[in-house]
Parts: sequence; structure tokens; C-alpha cells
Amino acid sequence: MDISNLRRLISTIKRPTLLIDKNIVFDNIKKMSQKAKKSSVNFRPHFKTHQSAGIGNWYRQFGIQSITVSSLDMAVYFSNFGWQDITIALPVNLREIERINELSNKVKLNLLVESIEVVSYLEKKLHNKLKLWIKIDTGYNRTGLFWNNFKEIISLAERIKHGNQVMYSGILTHTGHSYQARSEAEIRDIYLDTLQKLMKVKEKLKESGNLETKISFGDTPCCSVIENFSEIDEIRPGAFIFNDLQQKQIGSCQFENIAIVLACPVLAKHESRNEILIHGGAVHLSKDYIVDQEEQKIFGWVYDLDGVHGNQIVPETWVKSLSQEHGIIKTNKDFFARINIGDMVCVIPVHSCLAVDLMRVMYTFEGEKIDCSPKFY
Amino acid sequence: MDISNLRRLISTIKRPTLLIDKNIVFDNIKKMSQKAKKSSVNFRPHFKTHQSAGIGNWYRQFGIQSITVSSLDMAVYFSNFGWQDITIALPVNLREIERINELSNKVKLNLLVESIEVVSYLEKKLHNKLKLWIKIDTGYNRTGLFWNNFKEIISLAERIKHGNQVMYSGILTHTGHSYQARSEAEIRDIYLDTLQKLMKVKEKLKESGNLETKISFGDTPCCSVIENFSEIDEIRPGAFIFNDLQQKQIGSCQFENIAIVLACPVLAKHESRNEILIHGGAVHLSKDYIVDQEEQKIFGWVYDLDGVHGNQIVPETWVKSLSQEHGIIKTNKDFFARINIGDMVCVIPVHSCLAVDLMRVMYTFEGEKIDCSPKFY
Repeated sequence: MDISNLRRLISTIKRPTLLIDKNIVFDNIKKMSQKAKKSSVNFRPHFKTHQSAGIGNWYRQFGIQSITVSSLDMAVYFSNFGWQDITIALPVNLREIERINELSNKVKLNLLVESIEVVSYLEKKLHNKLKLWIKIDTGYNRTGLFWNNFKEIISLAERIKHGNQVMYSGILTHTGHSYQARSEAEIRDIYLDTLQKLMKVKEKLKESGNLETKISFGDTPCCSVIENFSEIDEIRPGAFIFNDLQQKQIGSCQFENIAIVLACPVLAKHESRNEILIHGGAVHLSKDYIVDQEEQKIFGWVYDLDGVHGNQIVPETWVKSLSQEHGIIKTNKDFFARINIGDMVCVIPVHSCLAVDLMRVMYTFEGEKIDCSPKFY
Repeated sequence: MDISNLRRLISTIKRPTLLIDKNIVFDNIKKMSQKAKKSSVNFRPHFKTHQSAGIGNWYRQFGIQSITVSSLDMAVYFSNFGWQDITIALPVNLREIERINELSNKVKLNLLVESIEVVSYLEKKLHNKLKLWIKIDTGYNRTGLFWNNFKEIISLAERIKHGNQVMYSGILTHTGHSYQARSEAEIRDIYLDTLQKLMKVKEKLKESGNLETKISFGDTPCCSVIENFSEIDEIRPGAFIFNDLQQKQIGSCQFENIAIVLACPVLAKHESRNEILIHGGAVHLSKDYIVDQEEQKIFGWVYDLDGVHGNQIVPETWVKSLSQEHGIIKTNKDFFARINIGDMVCVIPVHSCLAVDLMRVMYTFEGEKIDCSPKFY
């Protein structure tokens, strides 16, 4: 991060504030978009990470035209800012059929399905012919048809193929179990394993009904680590744009790729236990945590603004607990002595998507205000 | 909860929506306010739970005039809706001194301190004379001067007493360790233990400098369970207004006192594992969880809309995991069979304050829209 710009900015900040290093953000987008181009796959970034029209515009500079979102509300929001090709990466919500029809008059909308029941409903209710992806579960066990359930996958694909109001796109997966990885090597293994499964599904679909099947692949860890996507058709990473502690722990980014910090005022110090109280809580950072090697919950690490440790985090220092607005930083004697009440500390969030969703506003290190996470109700 | 009204309302709802039973809310406020009156203590409810001008107005019907908030932003927000006596229950943030001065021109503002350093700063910078509470740590170990550190507590109180710009109110504590309790009896023990400590501090302050010390006491579990507050001067509970799973687990409320649910559309079903996918994730419920007796993480329980189990939760059924927008409900064969894709399920949040902060809008069971959690930036 650009420490001198960050330092200058936080000297003017008075309350918990989310800050992003625009240069790192641009660098993260650039690298991912170049990799996608090199492999000739479509880059359809997940916009749930930023939920921001402003940051959406930054993507446009890299030629991005298709996006992923995680709710119809988000799709409507981005359509209002000119995005014309949107995949809602959550199994379609039948209760929202009217708004889906409305939106599909304006933009190219792609939906996710995993049951004949839902496809039949869409067949009856859709006003415009929409492309459907079959959601495949490759081992994350959140949702989707399990990858080796070829029978159901094939009959669902056939049902879509023969529909009047729906078109068949292919198979889509979110390899969420990559979040259990702890090294690049483990992430590669998960990618290769997933790829093998998806290729098998594709092969079965080809054999059965001569179905041309595209493969859409999501998750930041795999997309960050893998260089060559030539076997698939589309990537949908989101969190790579900011990265965070979780991505660092997984092994999908380095410190220098993390673009986001929450600046927090120091409210009190407790010398007997080397703890610093900050204004920065669950309503700023979220209650997401990582667990370190000592089985301790970590709600954030502290970025070293003094550069004592060479543009890195402060050692032996972590956010150990969060209430609604309070955060407690556990630290060592050295950092404890360096920090005063009224100072600011910069916390790297565990999960950037959730911090952004909570904060609703970000600032670049240059002080540019960026609205995000709009109100949908 | 009023199931028939709730059922009628959710038949019209299409996306994750936060709903409150206004009758239960009123009942919860009424009981707490009557208890406070009976003990002749000031009832200063914590408004961080709802962050809503509209719900603030409901409190007015019970004669409430003084409130607690957890940030200066929240204090400014409520001052714009006519609240004139506000305690910010977070150690004062020195960086916000200008806005504190501004706000203190309009309202009676009470601040929390725990160090001479901060009091000296306030002495120099405050434009209006403000009342200060000394934050006491009675065992929660989040912040405050430790209760038996009489020397520091006395010298801080003396410093405030002799200040020109500050006035001494007394001692204030948040017994956050009551959240570890699992029965009314345990909560009572914590209250009595805390009371003993605070009375000792008060006695020491009286002995040392003839200081008249008021006691302000917060936390929903103790305030919900204890009937007689005659030894103290003020209570500041917040979460009791809605209650939630956490309060139920602690033993500070019954099911019939829970006033809040998140209505979530059902997106998919997974029969092999009796799991139901809902649209309802970390951006709706927060990542807060409770741990049950089998050491499982619970992110929510499911309210039984069919009344099969007598206005209670659905047995053997819980939200087992949350991503940003996805939630997975683990259930039994019976409930699994009763629920269809496109139905709504009502999830009782683990932590109502965080769900309200995330959702920004609530509806009463009668469909009245209530804005909450305003944007502060």
C-alpha cells in the first residue's frame, strides 16, 4: 500500500472509515483481466464484493462488459448504471418472477437453476427467453446438483434445451471449498480436481444429447492462483479486487495485493493486558474471522503505518474480539507503547465483501469518496 | 408472535425481509419501563439495537426521555429527531471533539471516560460543560478501569470533580459477561456480583472525597431478569426490545418475547442431506452465531409458521451456515417435506442488533415500513 498517501489521509479522519488503495485495485483487476484474455475466457467479475457503480466503472477501463451479482436487487442496481449482461449467481428466486421479467426487458439476464421444477416454472412465467446455467456442486456442498449425478444433470439440460422460454448455457460452479486451502499448491489441487469433474460432466452431456456445454467457474482463490483457464469458458472471481486476511491465509494473495483497510480511532489502552480499544466493531468489519495456528480467532490484522516492519502487518498483533462498535486489539509491548489514545490504526478486514457491505462508503487513499452497498428497500 | 398476521404478510413478500411483531415490541418496552419505574431508576434504553427514529417514537409513549447510543453519529441522528439527553456508551473519541462541541450546543450529552489523559483533553477542548461517567470494568474485560483499582478510579473522579468543563456523574458499567450465562439463576448471580463490586466502588468514592456517585448499569440479560434495581440509578438495556436467539440461549427471554424474524425465500432443496437453501445470508443475519450443546454453530432457528409445534421453533432445524447471500437450513424429514421451493421461511436471528443494522428497513406484521440503521457517511 501507498503508506505516505494513507498516512496523509488518516491524519484527517475522525471515525471508522474504509479505505482502498486504488493503484492496488487497478493492479488486481488488470492482472485478472490479462489472465482471462490470455486463456480466451470471458471475465465476468462478481460485483457483490464492491456493490458500487463507481468501482464498476473502473472495470470498464479493462473492457469488462459482463458481470456477476448475487441478488436481483444488485442486478437492478447495476442495470441502472448501464450494465447489460448480468448473471445472478444464486439459484433463481421464483417469488421475484415479475421483477425478473421487468429487468429482462432491459438487459441480458442469466439465471441459475438446479431443478426441473424451477425450469418448468420459468417456462410458464418468463416473458423473455433467458439463458440458464445449471448449478453444479463440485464438493462445496452448498447448493447445486452434485457433479456425478449425471442422470439428473442430463435430464435438466435436456429440459432446458427443449424449452421455449429458456436457453441452455452450460454448467456453473462455485468452488467454495477452496477457502479451506492454506497454500497455492492446495488451491491448484482443488482447481484441477474441480476441472476434472466439470470436464466429465461436459463429456456426459455431449455424449447424451450432443449438448454444447460452456463452463463457468467462480471463486477468488482458484482464479487468483491458476494461470491457464483454457479448458473453461468463463471466470467469476470477486474478492480478488480488494483481497483480505482470508485470501492471505488461504494463500491466494500476498500482502502487497491487499487493497483495503478500516481506519479506526483508538479510544482506550489497557496496559496490564497489552490491549487497545478501537472504535471499529461488528458493524464495520463483520463478525467473520479466521483461526490462526494457535486456534485463536482473528477478526483483523493491523497494518503497520510506521513501516517499522517493512510495509507489513504489526507482529503479535490482532483484533481479538468485536462487539457492535468496540474492537479489542491484542498486541505486544512495542506496538502498545507506540500507540496513543486519539491515534488511528488501520485494520485489514478478514472478509472485504462483508466490510464493504457494512460500511456503504469507501475512500481512496487520495480521498475520493466511493458509494457502495446501496439500500435496496 | 401473531402468526396469522405474519402469514398474511409473508405471502406478499418476495425477498429477504426483516419483520417485527409490534405488539411484542410494545410489551417488551412496557415491562422494562414499568420495572424501572417501580425501582425508581432512570430507564435510558440503548438505541443501537434499532437505530430508528420511528421506533424511538414508540419509546416516547412510555415517557422515555433519555437514551443511550454507541457512536457520535448515532447521537447526531437521534438529536435530529428531538432526543435531548443522550449518553454515548463508548469511551469518548478525541478525534471527534469538534462534532461533540457542535452537538453539545443542542442537547445534553453525556460521555464516558476512563483515563486522566482524556479528561485533561476534554477540559481543554470542550465548549460546553458536559457530564462524564467513569467506565468501570466489572469483569467483562472489554474496557474501563478495573473495579478494584480504587486508586485510579478515585483520582479520575477527583480530577473530574475539580474540572471546569466537566461534571462528575458517577460510574457506568456494561456487564457483557452476562452473555456467558445460560440460565436466569446464572444471570442473577452475575448481577449480584456486579452490584457488590459497584457498591464497593461507590463506598470508596464516598469515603475518599465525599463524592456522590450515581450507578448506571447496562446489558439486556441482567435488566431482563432482575426485578428490583433499587441500589442503582439507571439501566441501559437495548436488545430486550426485540430479543433474539442469543437472549433465548442466555435465559433472559422466552420464545414469546422474541419480536423479530427474517423472512427468507426458499431457493433449492437437497433431499440427500435434508438441507434447504434460502436467500438469507451474512448480509442479512450477520455472521454471529451461538453454539448448541452438540458444539454445532447455529446462525438462526426457524420459526414454525404452521403452528404445528405450538408457536415455537421447528425442532431439529437450524441455519447451519451463511455465505454472503446464501443460507443453509439443516432440518428433519418432516419439515423438509413441508417446505417447497418458492415458499418463505422465517428465521429468528442470533443477534437482533446486527440483523437490524444490516437490513436498514423493517416491517411490522401489519406491513408498516420502518427505516433503521441510517447511513452516516
